[in-house]
Amino acid sequence: METTMDRKALYDISYGLYVITSIADGRMNGQIANTVFQVSSTPAKIAVSINKENLTHEYILKSGVLAVSTLGQETPLPFIGLFGFKSGREIDKLSQCAYVQGATGCPCVTDHALSYMEGKVVASADGGTHTVFIVELAAAAVLKKGTPLTYAYYQEVKNGKAPKTAPTYKEAAAENASKTTEKESSMKKYECGICGYIYDPEAGDPENNIPAGTPFDKLPDEWTCPICGAGKEDFSEVA
Amino acid sequence: METTMDRKALYDISYGLYVITSIADGRMNGQIANTVFQVSSTPAKIAVSINKENLTHEYILKSGVLAVSTLGQETPLPFIGLFGFKSGREIDKLSQCAYVQGATGCPCVTDHALSYMEGKVVASADGGTHTVFIVELAAAAVLKKGTPLTYAYYQEVKNGKAPKTAPTYKEAAAENASKTTEKESSMKKYECGICGYIYDPEAGDPENNIPAGTPFDKLPDEWTCPICGAGKEDFSEVA
Repeated sequence: METTMDRKALYDISYGLYVITSIADGRMNGQIANTVFQVSSTPAKIAVSINKENLTHEYILKSGVLAVSTLGQETPLPFIGLFGFKSGREIDKLSQCAYVQGATGCPCVTDHALSYMEGKVVASADGGTHTVFIVELAAAAVLKKGTPLTYAYYQEVKNGKAPKTAPTYKEAAAENASKTTEKESSMKKYECGICGYIYDPEAGDPENNIPAGTPFDKLPDEWTCPICGAGKEDFSEVA
Repeated sequence: METTMDRKALYDISYGLYVITSIADGRMNGQIANTVFQVSSTPAKIAVSINKENLTHEYILKSGVLAVSTLGQETPLPFIGLFGFKSGREIDKLSQCAYVQGATGCPCVTDHALSYMEGKVVASADGGTHTVFIVELAAAAVLKKGTPLTYAYYQEVKNGKAPKTAPTYKEAAAENASKTTEKESSMKKYECGICGYIYDPEAGDPENNIPAGTPFDKLPDEWTCPICGAGKEDFSEVA
């Protein structure tokens, strides 16, 4: 009888990255999720899993509509930071990006998206911390051809993180334990206290013109976390 | 009001490929699915969407347990053909591969798998042709490190197809219409009538030592469909 639980098995699941939006009582919000799959072809239905704590979940429950925009591989990290690491309870995310409103009224985000789809919730399942919504599509559009951004690419190539409300969130300590070796002070990694992004001097931050080999203390004062926009003061040395 | 439905938007969703198995009344079966995502972290739960017509669905409904094996990128097409294009009503699939039985009794397939997980259905949602099962994991194991096989890789690099019961199945005619141009007879494509695999002479079938540039009528008589094992007589020219 094998009853051990090696949670790393869950890391082998493949995902894309999406902006999920909804609208309720005229208020709009959106968030990043990686949990979308198609469940039927005729009629076209998808499943979307959303954390119950999130504002987007509240709006979906109220209005029964949602939209999904599939992000392309070129999506910049700050855009993911806007939708993935900030709360719509504090900022108006949709005021900071382009979108169209169609069949359901949901704001279908078009910035950095390859395509979008929108529809009505026709069923749901309780996943504990999350709800899985089954959505019958009312409309869908392709915006451009391109390679979809996968969660694997986001993690490996862009060094991106999951927010704490994501099912795929990993405790930073456990994740980094095996990577940490004694380094010269100048090449030490620093972790963002807001979103968990790790600044690695060996990689630099090419999207913001920080070349590889730049120590954390040599970053310009105006440099901010490429994911969530936090300042240098929110970073601490990785032990 | 945008109410058009361009179904190609659905093709931008990213997926892995998995063998889903179950056991009921001592009988075991398994099938390929691409529809798996994690829904919660504590406790660990996943969602799995399965076609109601499939034998594996029947077994999951009866016993309330299932296992998921995540396939690696090196998985050969005939293995996918065994689990994806043949019915457990006709053959005993599990007799043709390695597996372990653990916490739930489900056969956790280990051939070509990077990892597996198994658990009990704790909720479900009706997706029309499919059921989305929410599964609380009882056990999980990592078998080896490797790159997970993605559905995009399977389609683009391996030239693989979806079975007709998959939500991502596309009608061959529509899919190939844009690709079909007038070709010399020798370079014409042939489609497997069982699983929809397209033999393309320009690509050959490298996994079976058929070099690029080999016309269909020059394939050895013993050559079979790399996905489902059908013979040459089951192929017809793509119009």
